Amino acid sequence: MAKRKNIDARNSSKVQDKRKHVPTEQELFNGIKSGNKARLGQAITLIESARPTDAQKAHQLVERCLSQKSPSVRIGITGVPGVGKSTFVETLGKQLIAIGKKVAVLAVDPTSSKNRGSILGDKTRMTELSRDPNAFVRPSPSGKSLGGVAQKTRETIILCEAAAYDVVLVETVGVGQSETAVHGMVDFFLLLKLSGAGDELQGIKRGIIEMADAIVINKADGDNIKRAKLAEVDFKRALQLYPPKENGWLPVVRSCSAIENTGIKEVWEVIETYLNDAIDAGYLDQKRRNQNKYWLLQTIEERLKIDFFYHQEIKAQLEIVTEKVMRNETSPFRAAEELLQLWRGH
Amino acid sequence: MAKRKNIDARNSSKVQDKRKHVPTEQELFNGIKSGNKARLGQAITLIESARPTDAQKAHQLVERCLSQKSPSVRIGITGVPGVGKSTFVETLGKQLIAIGKKVAVLAVDPTSSKNRGSILGDKTRMTELSRDPNAFVRPSPSGKSLGGVAQKTRETIILCEAAAYDVVLVETVGVGQSETAVHGMVDFFLLLKLSGAGDELQGIKRGIIEMADAIVINKADGDNIKRAKLAEVDFKRALQLYPPKENGWLPVVRSCSAIENTGIKEVWEVIETYLNDAIDAGYLDQKRRNQNKYWLLQTIEERLKIDFFYHQEIKAQLEIVTEKVMRNETSPFRAAEELLQLWRGH
Repeated sequence: MAKRKNIDARNSSKVQDKRKHVPTEQELFNGIKSGNKARLGQAITLIESARPTDAQKAHQLVERCLSQKSPSVRIGITGVPGVGKSTFVETLGKQLIAIGKKVAVLAVDPTSSKNRGSILGDKTRMTELSRDPNAFVRPSPSGKSLGGVAQKTRETIILCEAAAYDVVLVETVGVGQSETAVHGMVDFFLLLKLSGAGDELQGIKRGIIEMADAIVINKADGDNIKRAKLAEVDFKRALQLYPPKENGWLPVVRSCSAIENTGIKEVWEVIETYLNDAIDAGYLDQKRRNQNKYWLLQTIEERLKIDFFYHQEIKAQLEIVTEKVMRNETSPFRAAEELLQLWRGH
Repeated sequence: MAKRKNIDARNSSKVQDKRKHVPTEQELFNGIKSGNKARLGQAITLIESARPTDAQKAHQLVERCLSQKSPSVRIGITGVPGVGKSTFVETLGKQLIAIGKKVAVLAVDPTSSKNRGSILGDKTRMTELSRDPNAFVRPSPSGKSLGGVAQKTRETIILCEAAAYDVVLVETVGVGQSETAVHGMVDFFLLLKLSGAGDELQGIKRGIIEMADAIVINKADGDNIKRAKLAEVDFKRALQLYPPKENGWLPVVRSCSAIENTGIKEVWEVIETYLNDAIDAGYLDQKRRNQNKYWLLQTIEERLKIDFFYHQEIKAQLEIVTEKVMRNETSPFRAAEELLQLWRGH
């Protein structure tokens, strides 16, 4: 036992000394500031770490990066698997780099472990972009709880901004709970769709169309062009029946082919128009402040629920009263009151 | 002082004895069971009472009424002020009574105090219905918090069902937060609209169209018929772009004139079709069970938040950290953690 421990200690110190030097918070911050992609990657890993000992260091780093003002643009991109998100992101990313931007690509996908989508998993599709010195591509964090993943992604955006990335693209699969979270951390929210609506819609989350600042029909190429144009008209008509957004923006519909690189420039123009209007009207700043407040309250609410619902005694009692409520033997309000009395007595 | 007190006591006991006998829980229950509208009204007042001494009695009454199985139908009706909700409810209500139903009409409107809508406020429009022995019309409860109003409405439905009302119509104004609550307590959710969309949509809440099981264009009369028919087509097209409901139901679009009593019968047929399908597939029972569970969890979450956010020390500290978060001096997650540590220390 003692011997084994010594070997471990020797090995681990060797690893620390030679191959895996653990960077200090200062080193990470300096690396981020100087545009060192490897350091940025290590910093994100630190943030994603579940180890309590890493938390303090991660907090410090985030606070330090927050103090770096940066005029970045945050764009959320969603759509069901198969809609061509990766190709769209790669094509858009390369165009942005061509006009002098630095682009970071992040992914929020709490379902990826279930092998539902291939969000950034299929790395081959993003190789060109990720090799570009002006691009940084980071696959989905492996956190389990959505709250956790959202927090990590939100903090990763802050690191990317401190690293002077002008545009942060946040991808999500559009079938789970992550869209509301992403919508709450970006300046512009884009929904990718296909022209042959029907089937594809089965998987999409209700309410997502109303979140979109733009709907872009992808794969408008070859035989598909006509159908895509028809879908465009349909969506334009449909969106007219909806109330405008708080800032007066009417969601825009466009079509494009990410694979043939047509219509992507026009999508970017839409985003720029939106942002320019929002900056001029002071709306963008307001939106970001509100988002910060949203995350503060959201985090508190989430943690309060976790404290309650994961408490052993409450869990057991909840099961019992839920059964009673389901059988109509007690009202849900009465049952809730009982549980809360138990909780407050602790 | 002492003299005054005596007079008050004498007056109040006189009132209690002669004019305002306070019915016991048993009397209320018997009255409800025997179809006594005055007793039902008193029972609802008991439920709406904010007095802690009434709470226990109210709870008992609700539990007792819950044990009365009743095959009622719960329908939510929403739409912005001016869309003709009261006329629609009165016309539909009278038709239902004509085919042998007993109809209760309730309203959820936490904004009514601000004089925004005239939901059931303009009593003259409902006089005919409320005078009918087979109808029971109850205006909006005066509770302040939405959670409270929702709970009271939910419990009022239970009383109406114990009083053997076959159809419970729950009205809401469609501009606030009450729609999600009402959607969570009814079997069928109907959105009333006007043909001249534009202006009217300004006030409506985002997400409400996706909640609707049916959209009914009202005031399809006179010069308006053609426009209403066009709006009907527009909405039908628009809804095709949306995913179907969990039970496979595709929301239906109809037009009607509540004032001329055209198209109302057809709306009821739609509701009946939905309900028959839902009963046959076991979906209705499932939906109600899920709604009960929703209310249990919803109530707990609401109360947990109230405990936290109304706590004096937390309130003061929250203000301070919110300012810091808004000025980007700390991350929202860090700030949340600080507050939660303070809270857990209590």
